[in-house]
Amino acid sequence: MNNALLVIAHGSRLASSNDEVRALTERLRERTQGRYRTVSCAFLELAEPSIPAAIDAAAAEGSTHIVLLPYFLAGGTHVSHHIPDIVSAKQREHPDVRLELKAYVGASESMLKLLEDLT
Amino acid sequence: MNNALLVIAHGSRLASSNDEVRALTERLRERTQGRYRTVSCAFLELAEPSIPAAIDAAAAEGSTHIVLLPYFLAGGTHVSHHIPDIVSAKQREHPDVRLELKAYVGASESMLKLLEDLT
Repeated sequence: MNNALLVIAHGSRLASSNDEVRALTERLRERTQGRYRTVSCAFLELAEPSIPAAIDAAAAEGSTHIVLLPYFLAGGTHVSHHIPDIVSAKQREHPDVRLELKAYVGASESMLKLLEDLT
Repeated sequence: MNNALLVIAHGSRLASSNDEVRALTERLRERTQGRYRTVSCAFLELAEPSIPAAIDAAAAEGSTHIVLLPYFLAGGTHVSHHIPDIVSAKQREHPDVRLELKAYVGASESMLKLLEDLT
């Protein structure tokens, strides 16, 4: 198994917010047990590791398939441009690694159900 | 029934992103049919209506219970400070209206399941 899952978050000036993403990633690691060799997170800005650094690290560890899941709610410029641009550039650097950029979380049909349950 | 549901999003420079929140709100209105007199959205910044304007509008329409659901993933400064401050100020302006600020979407236990399903 040479695949890695990267949860991509925006990053916040508030350390507790970034820690929250890290904690969620830990829990997701437990939930997806065995399906990915590694499960980690990366931040677009304001926190570490950056997305390029996390991709480099996963590739250096021998991952040949890296699944990137944008933990974003709406398809703004980050989701539509910034993240795809970063992933495209990294794909050129790592031609032997498959970088699979998933749809952002907010695009999921399940989100509507989640919102309904919360109201 | 004198209650209103307000989905609170950050707002984006990208009009399509704000329209996405509006479309999601439309669908949520259908899903919660009959449970709220009105279901609408409001934006913290970069889009209209603002949160104060949306609260004023709901109150003017006769809503006496306004449920505010922050459509945010992580508990950054917006969720922890900016939105509660806006709601507190509006609560003082509308003492006869109950403003109920819900936990943000990312705090939901269901989010982990949603992420798991997407990976």
